[in-house]
Formats: sequence, C-alpha cells, structure tokens
Amino acid sequence: MSFIESLNAAWSHTQSMLCVGLDPEPSRFPGAFNGRADSIFDFCREIVDATAPFVCSFKPQIAYFAAHRAEDQLEQLIAHIHERHPGLPVILDAKRGDIGSTAEQYAIEAFDRYQADAVTVNPYMGFDSVQPYLEHEGKGVIVLCRTSNAGGSDLQFLNVDGTPLYQVVARLAAEKWNASGELGLVVGATFPKEIEVVRSIVGDMPLLIPGIGAQGGDVEATVRAGRVRPGNAGMLINSSRAIIYAGKGEDFANAAGEAAKRTRDAINAVGS
Amino acid sequence: MSFIESLNAAWSHTQSMLCVGLDPEPSRFPGAFNGRADSIFDFCREIVDATAPFVCSFKPQIAYFAAHRAEDQLEQLIAHIHERHPGLPVILDAKRGDIGSTAEQYAIEAFDRYQADAVTVNPYMGFDSVQPYLEHEGKGVIVLCRTSNAGGSDLQFLNVDGTPLYQVVARLAAEKWNASGELGLVVGATFPKEIEVVRSIVGDMPLLIPGIGAQGGDVEATVRAGRVRPGNAGMLINSSRAIIYAGKGEDFANAAGEAAKRTRDAINAVGS
Repeated sequence: MSFIESLNAAWSHTQSMLCVGLDPEPSRFPGAFNGRADSIFDFCREIVDATAPFVCSFKPQIAYFAAHRAEDQLEQLIAHIHERHPGLPVILDAKRGDIGSTAEQYAIEAFDRYQADAVTVNPYMGFDSVQPYLEHEGKGVIVLCRTSNAGGSDLQFLNVDGTPLYQVVARLAAEKWNASGELGLVVGATFPKEIEVVRSIVGDMPLLIPGIGAQGGDVEATVRAGRVRPGNAGMLINSSRAIIYAGKGEDFANAAGEAAKRTRDAINAVGS
Repeated sequence: MSFIESLNAAWSHTQSMLCVGLDPEPSRFPGAFNGRADSIFDFCREIVDATAPFVCSFKPQIAYFAAHRAEDQLEQLIAHIHERHPGLPVILDAKRGDIGSTAEQYAIEAFDRYQADAVTVNPYMGFDSVQPYLEHEGKGVIVLCRTSNAGGSDLQFLNVDGTPLYQVVARLAAEKWNASGELGLVVGATFPKEIEVVRSIVGDMPLLIPGIGAQGGDVEATVRAGRVRPGNAGMLINSSRAIIYAGKGEDFANAAGEAAKRTRDAINAVGS
C-alpha cells in the first residue's frame, strides 16, 4: 500500500486522526530507563504498543535519536512498528531540504534504511529538492507550510504579492508538486484560521498538524478547521510530549495509552 | 578559537577561499575502495590529507554518510581533520531546520557528537529555529539564502513587497539574527549578480558558495562578486565532486590535491 492508501485505511480502521510523535529524551524517561540513551528503543516500544490502538500514525523525530548516536535504535523502532502494528504508516520527521543529488541520499536514508512510509521536507530550496523523494513509489512527502513555532512567521507570513508565503507554498504543493498524489503539508495547530485557509487551497490533501498538547493548540478549533468529511479524515494531529511523558512512574506506558485514547476521543467528539 | 576566528586565520594562513565538500559515493570510489561503504572514511581521509594545504575549510555533507549507516565514519573523519589539520574549520552540511527543542537536539548532534565548527541551517522556520545553534558559544551557523539549484527560485525569488525573498533572508540574517557574530550565508555561484547584492546587504559576513566545479558556476565572476578585501577573504567557495572525483585510479588523492591547488590558484588569480 502507498502512504496515502495506508493512511486512509488507518483513519478508517482506528477511527483516529491522532499521530503520536516519538521525541525520546532520556532525561525524561521514567524509572530504570531514566537517563539511559540505550533505553530509547525500549521506552519508545512500550509507548508504541500502548498507544497503537488509538492512532493513525507514528512520527519519530530523528534529531532525538541522532543526538544520542541512536540511529540503530530508530531502525529497530520502525521495524517494530511495521511488524507489530502493520498498516500504521510511519512518518520520519527529518525536515530535510537539499539539492537533487543530496536529496536522493536523504531519500535512501528515510525510505531504504529506516523503512519510513513518509518523510517531512522543507520547501525553501524548491521543487527539485522535493522531487527525489516522490520518485520512491508509494512513499509520502510532507512539506512544511505553516509551522507552529513563534518564529514561523518570520518567513512564512511574508507578503508575496498580497499573499502570505505559506499560502504560496500550499498552492505550489497542491497545483504543481503533487503529481504522485502522495504529498501532504505541515500546518501548525496554533493557527486554526490558517489551517482553514490551507484546507480551502489544497482540497483533501492530508495535513500534519503539530502543536496540540504541550504546544497549547486548541483541539476543537483545529479539527473544525482541517477535517475532511465524511468520517474523521484528512488530518494527522500530532501530540508528542503530552502523550509520551503523560506518566512518570512504572505505569508510564498505560498512562501514555490513556492519554492517547483521551486525545483521540476529544478529537472525535468535535461535532460537525 | 571561534568559527569566525578560525576561518579568518585559515584564509590568512592558507591563502585560500576554497572549501572542499566531502560527498562520498562508494559507487564512484576508485580502485579497491569502489562500491565499499566501509571505505568512506579511508577514501575521505586520503582526499582530506591531499587537499588540506589548499583549502580554508572542509564541508562533509551528512546525507552521504547517513544513507550508508556511516555516522561512525563521519565522526572519525571530523576527528581526523581536527587532529591532523588543526585550524581548518569543519562545516557540517546538514541544512537542519526545526522548532527550538528539536533544533537543540540537532545542535548537540552537530557540535557535541560530530565536533563540527559550524552547521548549515534552513531559515524557513524563522529565528527561533536558528537560535539554539548560536547558543553553542563560538560555533558557526550558515543560513541558506540563495541556493544554486534550478528549483531555488521557486521560493527564494518570490516577490516580497518588491524584494526577492532571498534578499529578505539576507537582511534578517545581517540585521536581526547575528548577535553572536558567528553567522554566515549560503549563496549559490550560479548567480554572481545575486552574490553581489547579498554582499552589499551583509557587509563582511562569510558567504559559503556552492556551485562552482561540477555545478558549472563561473569562478572569476563569483570571486569578484563576493570577495572581501584586503587579501582573499569573505568566501568559502565550495567544490565537491570536481575535486574529490578528479582522479579515477590509484593516484586519486594526488589528483584531488592537484585539482584543489588549481582551483585555489584560479580563485586567487582573479585581479582586483
């Protein structure tokens, strides 16, 4: 199955638009794992197994592995997700962006080495920096559009002939860059009105929405702005820290599972 | 020494503005190294030792290591450069870009793990995605401004209130983002007139210039557009493939050294 097919199947099967972000920080690990970089896989595996019934996707953030020389644990983790939770697509959050020959190396890293189903990429270098990923058949590419951080506006809100830059990116993605049909966009939850504008530009393209949970985005406004009806589809609403660090004791995995269930239910409780 | 101090010392000491880009592709390795990902360190070490007298800096591109699970060889290579060629700053070409908490993980990766002196970053997510690197004292940050690929114009040439986006980035970098004094910009050699414009905006900020050699940029026009007088300073003119794959036989390292010397001399031959 292609990335988009598996995402559609996951939305339908788990009835969830929640994506759990895996940002492992050993200093925040509970109990015997605390402070141990060699426990990254074990910690994440327990989180994954406890939250899988309530999610449409997992999104490991590669920086948290690379800072600890834990690339091997990232490989193990993605292999574990595919083996134990088949059908749940894995998005490698790497935000890569480089010229074609280098982008192809990053694509090999994401898709061949890590076996990710999709990767996040940065649009600043233009289409030929995005295309090499799309040439990997069935793989997804999720392009940064409007990000949830305070500095996001420094560039993304610049006025391009009367249109904010992030809307120009949304238009490029929808109208020119999506020949494969496997493209998505990152749009932060801190700006629900902007999610609405992006949704109006891109049709039913999947939107990856960081910024709820620890970053403070409003679930109801976010869902109303970006959901694609019928059903609960069209969005991957990401929560990382609020879920993976929901518990601090021995039962951290249960606590993460409960937090994931609550978040999914809050998302699904939003009426039409 | 900080990144900028070591760069100034290198410009003066080696009388070179050449930066050799290390983009190892095992399929292009000569002789016994050919096709062997476990020879990445050995291949690069020979290139580094042969070209060091003629360069101001080395720039390993992390994607070429990550695609081959060769992070350990990248660590070894940078340690080798520091040990055998002290004073030559190493720029980790990673083009990272993410929110603050994740950017800090990437900074740990670049500066603590790999011991790079500077790292390339993407400006699309704004200043708070750049700042965490700058908080590592003495470390350099080289921000993408105008890139040498065909798609570079897709975003970078967009008209922001009458000014192309890349010039807005140059202005942000020069006027708002450079409190540490350790910032540089990437400006492609395929557009010498744009190097000239950026130089006029950023004063004597270092410019990393990809795109000569294999990518076809014109050395003379490039140097005239970006050099800072007196001496030969202000630019890191990068060449990767044209130097590291200059020879195909046993003497590949000598061939690379000669190509580096020729390129340095061509750069220095440009009159006032």
